[in-house]
Amino acid sequence: MVGVAEALNPRSIAVIGASRNPEKIGYVVLKQLLSKFRGKLYPINPSADEILGLKCYKSIMEVPDVVDLAVIAVPADHVIEVIKECGAKGVKAAVVLSSGFAEIGNRELEERLVEEARKGGVRIIGPNCMGIFDPGRGIDMLFVKEELLPRCKPGSIALLSQSGSVGTNMLSMLRRMNLGISTFVSYGNKADVDEADLLDVLADDERTRVITIYLEGVRDGRRLMNAIRRIRKPVVVLKVGRSEAGERAVASHTGSLAGSSRLYIAALRQAGAVIVDSMEELIDASKALSMQPPVMGKRVFIVTNGGGYGIMAVDELERRGMVVPKTPDEIKAVLKKEFPPYYSLENPIDLTANSTPDQYRMVLDILCNSEVCDAILVIPLMGIPNFDPMEVAEVISSMKCKRPVVVSFVSHTEETDKAKEIIEGSGIPVYESPERAARAIYFLYEYGRSYSGRGEADIPHSYRR
Amino acid sequence: MVGVAEALNPRSIAVIGASRNPEKIGYVVLKQLLSKFRGKLYPINPSADEILGLKCYKSIMEVPDVVDLAVIAVPADHVIEVIKECGAKGVKAAVVLSSGFAEIGNRELEERLVEEARKGGVRIIGPNCMGIFDPGRGIDMLFVKEELLPRCKPGSIALLSQSGSVGTNMLSMLRRMNLGISTFVSYGNKADVDEADLLDVLADDERTRVITIYLEGVRDGRRLMNAIRRIRKPVVVLKVGRSEAGERAVASHTGSLAGSSRLYIAALRQAGAVIVDSMEELIDASKALSMQPPVMGKRVFIVTNGGGYGIMAVDELERRGMVVPKTPDEIKAVLKKEFPPYYSLENPIDLTANSTPDQYRMVLDILCNSEVCDAILVIPLMGIPNFDPMEVAEVISSMKCKRPVVVSFVSHTEETDKAKEIIEGSGIPVYESPERAARAIYFLYEYGRSYSGRGEADIPHSYRR
Repeated sequence: MVGVAEALNPRSIAVIGASRNPEKIGYVVLKQLLSKFRGKLYPINPSADEILGLKCYKSIMEVPDVVDLAVIAVPADHVIEVIKECGAKGVKAAVVLSSGFAEIGNRELEERLVEEARKGGVRIIGPNCMGIFDPGRGIDMLFVKEELLPRCKPGSIALLSQSGSVGTNMLSMLRRMNLGISTFVSYGNKADVDEADLLDVLADDERTRVITIYLEGVRDGRRLMNAIRRIRKPVVVLKVGRSEAGERAVASHTGSLAGSSRLYIAALRQAGAVIVDSMEELIDASKALSMQPPVMGKRVFIVTNGGGYGIMAVDELERRGMVVPKTPDEIKAVLKKEFPPYYSLENPIDLTANSTPDQYRMVLDILCNSEVCDAILVIPLMGIPNFDPMEVAEVISSMKCKRPVVVSFVSHTEETDKAKEIIEGSGIPVYESPERAARAIYFLYEYGRSYSGRGEADIPHSYRR
Repeated sequence: MVGVAEALNPRSIAVIGASRNPEKIGYVVLKQLLSKFRGKLYPINPSADEILGLKCYKSIMEVPDVVDLAVIAVPADHVIEVIKECGAKGVKAAVVLSSGFAEIGNRELEERLVEEARKGGVRIIGPNCMGIFDPGRGIDMLFVKEELLPRCKPGSIALLSQSGSVGTNMLSMLRRMNLGISTFVSYGNKADVDEADLLDVLADDERTRVITIYLEGVRDGRRLMNAIRRIRKPVVVLKVGRSEAGERAVASHTGSLAGSSRLYIAALRQAGAVIVDSMEELIDASKALSMQPPVMGKRVFIVTNGGGYGIMAVDELERRGMVVPKTPDEIKAVLKKEFPPYYSLENPIDLTANSTPDQYRMVLDILCNSEVCDAILVIPLMGIPNFDPMEVAEVISSMKCKRPVVVSFVSHTEETDKAKEIIEGSGIPVYESPERAARAIYFLYEYGRSYSGRGEADIPHSYRR
C-alpha cells in the first residue's frame, strides 16, 4: 500500500503542468488545491517563475522538499519523462490526469508508462482520469469548475469509479441528496492502482463508513474479492457490462476484458459485497449503509398512515425476498385498546389519515423494543390534518430503537424537507418513494448476510445509533 | 357511460356543501372552480345567500337550470339525502368527496348510498375521494391548496387513482418532470364508477393519449380487461398488493378484495396493458407513451459519447429482454471512413469524449433511415469540450426518424435543462438516467406487443412524430 496511502492523504503535492491559462487543467487544479489544500503545494512548469502567487519550479527535481504526490497534467507524450523524474525524486504516487493512452489505442505508451513507474517506485492513479476529490482534506483535482459541478460536503461515503464522467455525475447525485463523501477517486484507465489497492487503504480510513464502487472491467478478480473479504466495512458495487453486448461495450470502452460478468457478480456477492443494479440503487444503498447498521433478518414491519404507500413497500420487500409478517396477537391486543376499530393493525400497520404523531410514537415504541422484527419501515403521509411534519420528525428522530429504521415520505414541501433534514440528522435515512426505502432495507439486509453466523455483537462499525 | 361522460366534461357544476369558511373543503373547491371553470357554477348551502359573490341555493332542487355534475362535500350522514335530491333534479353524476363510509367501517352507509344513487339515475365517483382535476377544462376539486400542491399543466396523460394521496403525489411528480395531464380522477372507495367506466369515456377524449392507472383492488376483472381491450390507446398500470402480505394490506385499505393479483396482472398484460412495478416506472412509461409511437421489435441501437452510460443502458435493456445487436458491417464501413480509429462503432456506438454534435448527426441519420433497428437510444454526455448542449439538442430535435427515439443525459445544469426542454418540445422524451431511458424503450415495446401481427400501419394514434 506504499504509494496509495500517500496518494489519498498527502502532506505535499506537486502539480506538474501547472498553468497560468485559466482554461487549462493545470490551472484549474492548482487553483482549487491552493484555496483548499492545507499541505504544501508546488507548481511545476519549465517556463514560469510564479503561478497564482506560488513559486514555480522548472522540474520536480528542483523542489527543495519531500513530495508525497504528483498530479500530472502535461500532454501524453511528456508523461513518461515526468514519471522518470518523479521516481528519481522519490515521489511515491502520481495521479496522471492526462489522456491519450490506451483509451485512444495508445496501449504501448501506457505499458511504457507503467514500466517506468515501477522502475522508479511510483504508484500511478490513471492515466486518463479525474483523480482525487477529498473535501475533508481539501484535495480537489476535479477539473470541472464548481459552477458546473458544485462540490459534495465531507461525509462518510468513499466513491470509486474508473470513469470520471460517471463518477462526477454520482457526486452530483450525492450532493442533491445532501450526502457527503470521504474520498472520491477516479482512476481512468486503471493502468496501475485499482479497486483492491484503494480498498486496502480505505479499510484504515476512519472517516469512511461505506465504499461505493462503479465497476466496469475487473483485471484481477481474485485480488478484488480478497480485498472485499478483508475489509470490515460495507462495499457496494454496481458492476456494469453484464450481458454479452454489455461485455462487448466494456471491452471497447476501457480496453479491459469484462469477461464472465455473471461469475464476477456471484463472486463479489460471495465475498460480501452488496450488489446493485443501477446508479440510483448504488446511491440509495450507500446512503442506507452509511447511516444504519446491517439488518440481521428478513422480518420487516411497516408503519404508515397512507395505505397505498404501505402496499407499494410490501410489494417491493417481497419482490426482494424480504418478509412482512402478520402482527402478533399480543401487540394487536395492546393497540386495539388505543385506536379506532378501522385502523389496520395488520402489518403494514395503517393508522389512516386520522392518525396523530403520538399514535406513531406509541406503535414505534412497541416495535422498537420487540423481538418480532428485524427492521422497521416508517412511511408517514404528510399534508393531512393534525399531523404536523415537525412533530412527526421529532417522534422518529428521538426513537431509541434496537432495530435498523428507514423512512419514506413522498412530499416535497418546505416543511417536509425540513422534517427530512431533522430525521436524517439523527442518522435515519429518508427516501422519496416507498419502493426505494424498501430496497434500502434489503440492501442493509444484504450487508447483514455477510455477518450471518457471527451475531450482531461482532458487527464492527460504530454506527451512529 | 351516461353520467360518467357528464362527470368528466360538465357544462354546469353544483357544489353541495359550499362554505364561507376558507378552511372547509366546500370553500376551497368552490373557490378553485370559480377561478377556473368556464361553465355554470352553483353553490348549495341551506344557510347562506351568497358565497364568494355567487348566489347560493338552499338545495339543488332550487337551481333554475340543468346541473350536469354535483360535487358533494357535506358530512357523511347527509350524503344520502343529498343524493336523493340530485336524482330528483336529474343530475347525471355526483362526485362524493365526503369521507366516513366503508373506509372507516361504515359499509352499510356506502351500500345505501349506491342504492339511492341507482334509483335516482345518478352515477357516483367516490365517496372518500379527491374527485376530478382537469386543467384544460378548468375543473379542480383538489382540496389541497395550490401553495402545497402546485398544479400540473394541461397535457395528454389521463391519471386514474382510487387513492387521492397517491394520485396527488403522482401529480407532483408529473409536474416536476414538466409533464401535463388531460384529466386526473381520484375515485376513493370506488362504490360505483370504476376504471372500466372511466376508460370507456377516455377512449373518446381526443386530448388523452395515454391512460395511467394506479390500481389497488379490482372489483370486476372481466369488465376491466374488456375496457382495456377495447380502447385503442396505451394503458399503463401499476397494480399494487401483489403478494400475500400485499393483498392483505389492500383488503384492509380499500375494503375490497385484492385476490389473485398475479392472475390479474397476467390478464391485464394479456388485454394489452403495459404493466409497471413502481411509481417511478408508472410515470416514466406514461411519459414515453404520451410522446413516442410503440416500438415494434426488440432491436435497440445506442448512440453515446459516454462509454459507461452506454453500458448501463445495455444492461437494463438486456435485463428486460430487449436486444442490442452488433452494428452491421455496411454501416461500420461508412462510419469508419469518417471517424478516428478509437471510436467504438459496435453497438453501443461510442463516439468518445472527442465527439462533436455533427458526428452525432451523421450516425443518427444513418440509423434513422436504416432497417436494422426498432428503436434508438441517444445518450449524449454533456459538459465536454466542443459539445455544445444547444447544438446537440438541435441535432436530436430536428431528426426525421422512422423509429421511436428516447434520450438520456445525466447533467443538471441550466444549459442542459434548456437542451432537455428543446428535445422534449420536439416530442422526444429525455430521462435522467440511462437505465430509466432504457426502460422507457422497453415500455414502448410492451405497448408495441399489443399490435404485433397488425403491422405499424394499424397503429391508431396520431403521435407527434
